[in-house]
Amino acid sequence: MSLIVVGSMAFDAIETPFGKSDKIVGGAATYIAWCASNFTAVNQISVIGGDFPQEELDALTARGVSLDGVEIKKDEKSFFWSGRYHMDMNSRDTLVTELNVLEHFKPIVPDSYQDSEFLMLGNLTPSVQMSVIDQMKVRPKLIVMDTMNLWMDIAMDDLKELLKKVDVLMVNDSEARQLSGDFSLVRAAKTILGMGPKYLIIKKGEHGALLFHEGKVFFAPALPLEEVFDPTGAGDTFAGGFIGHIAKTKDISFENMKTAIIVGSAMASFCVEKFGTERLREVTKADMDERLKEFVQLVNFDIDLSE
Amino acid sequence: MSLIVVGSMAFDAIETPFGKSDKIVGGAATYIAWCASNFTAVNQISVIGGDFPQEELDALTARGVSLDGVEIKKDEKSFFWSGRYHMDMNSRDTLVTELNVLEHFKPIVPDSYQDSEFLMLGNLTPSVQMSVIDQMKVRPKLIVMDTMNLWMDIAMDDLKELLKKVDVLMVNDSEARQLSGDFSLVRAAKTILGMGPKYLIIKKGEHGALLFHEGKVFFAPALPLEEVFDPTGAGDTFAGGFIGHIAKTKDISFENMKTAIIVGSAMASFCVEKFGTERLREVTKADMDERLKEFVQLVNFDIDLSE
Repeated sequence: MSLIVVGSMAFDAIETPFGKSDKIVGGAATYIAWCASNFTAVNQISVIGGDFPQEELDALTARGVSLDGVEIKKDEKSFFWSGRYHMDMNSRDTLVTELNVLEHFKPIVPDSYQDSEFLMLGNLTPSVQMSVIDQMKVRPKLIVMDTMNLWMDIAMDDLKELLKKVDVLMVNDSEARQLSGDFSLVRAAKTILGMGPKYLIIKKGEHGALLFHEGKVFFAPALPLEEVFDPTGAGDTFAGGFIGHIAKTKDISFENMKTAIIVGSAMASFCVEKFGTERLREVTKADMDERLKEFVQLVNFDIDLSE
Repeated sequence: MSLIVVGSMAFDAIETPFGKSDKIVGGAATYIAWCASNFTAVNQISVIGGDFPQEELDALTARGVSLDGVEIKKDEKSFFWSGRYHMDMNSRDTLVTELNVLEHFKPIVPDSYQDSEFLMLGNLTPSVQMSVIDQMKVRPKLIVMDTMNLWMDIAMDDLKELLKKVDVLMVNDSEARQLSGDFSLVRAAKTILGMGPKYLIIKKGEHGALLFHEGKVFFAPALPLEEVFDPTGAGDTFAGGFIGHIAKTKDISFENMKTAIIVGSAMASFCVEKFGTERLREVTKADMDERLKEFVQLVNFDIDLSE
């Protein structure tokens, strides 16, 4: 068993210019697990309330996701988030946040997870993310973390401690700017790589993603889509594809991370086609191969530098 | 002689968050000519006042730019534009627009230009762009045009007539949305390709550029830069690199257009490094090759679809 995923499993209620969802299953670790389980076995760590549907858990188990690390607080409610997207689908307003079980979440790494080689820390309070690293008896081969602007506002010291312990940080462009205090993403990347992580991935939504490492930079576009139906979970799905590909190939070179980012981008392009995790559940190997081909065609060009 | 460039030659005064220029030489056709002359001889068509510096004209002549089609109205003033960029450098406010000689511009195609195989129509009133096409005794192999939102507001009928006569339309993302009435760029592209052009290039500034043709799409990133010093003329420089590469190679296939877009992107990445045309004037063949290599490294990845 090779990949631990830590993060929220939750309910979301989503409004977009194109429609409105009921209260549906969401949460960072849910999206990551649905995506990464295409590539590798997943050891899930999360916390849910008694209201979380058993069939959702069963569906994950059937995908090869171990739920030994998912605590169920029978008498409490699962984390709930509700938000409304703007017309450009790149920005959103949070309407409701009910922490519920997440408020006192103390993740416990089961013994059966201890041999995991890869660790994906979905967005959570930095101290909670840190507690998972602290529990690992052998440091994983690669630790990847997501975070958000809220923690930069209220827990920057904890966040900075954590950054010293991880290999790959994933943030979006505005978070990279906030964390570094620099508007230029290239300069922001230099600053952030000086804070600890060896690799930095800056997600730019429909404008693709950048990977920075030492003096090198790689860019992966997002697939131009006719319609972005619901962007919720796209970033987590991207993370799931990235770490899933790495865990499958057990290759943590810069070259393989480039491929992993393309895989993550391809998976994210499925995620946004329907509400919630719906589209992710249907994706076949043939769908994935077809979409990876589209990425190759999208960016492939010939240039003769010898003229 | 193979490439005609039509457009403004002007004075600009530019303010950015990083500095302020004097009144410097600018204009779409100036940027296009400085860039395209790296690749091919240029037949320039424009209009200037008696105030346009002779040494600027001499510098262009020395680059292989024919000025036979540049009308000099000795007693009038050149077009003048002044603008101020916002912090993100993707948006700007126009402070001053003085049309001057441009107000009654009636371009005349000199006989010596009639054998030109390629035509680049820089942003101008659509009827003025059309008059150049009408004067060509033999239709050029490829006609590329730029335009702007202003003409969609005040001259949409002329613009639509013109679109039926060109091969490649270049617009930015907001212009593509306005022209098509569709927010999705993929759907916007379908609509615009139905208006006449066989190829559509949508420029997204720091987020790169998309090329659409029939059912195909190609994406070229912009080079992530530490500092964008002055974005003025970046779109025109991109156009100059695109059409310059095409004119040099005389290959109007989709595959070669992909390469041409990368060349345009590389040239635009130089343009923004200094005020006005300053950086463009210094660029060497070695600089260009080096930057093209950076583009290859930026987007190149390996993926094995046979697994």
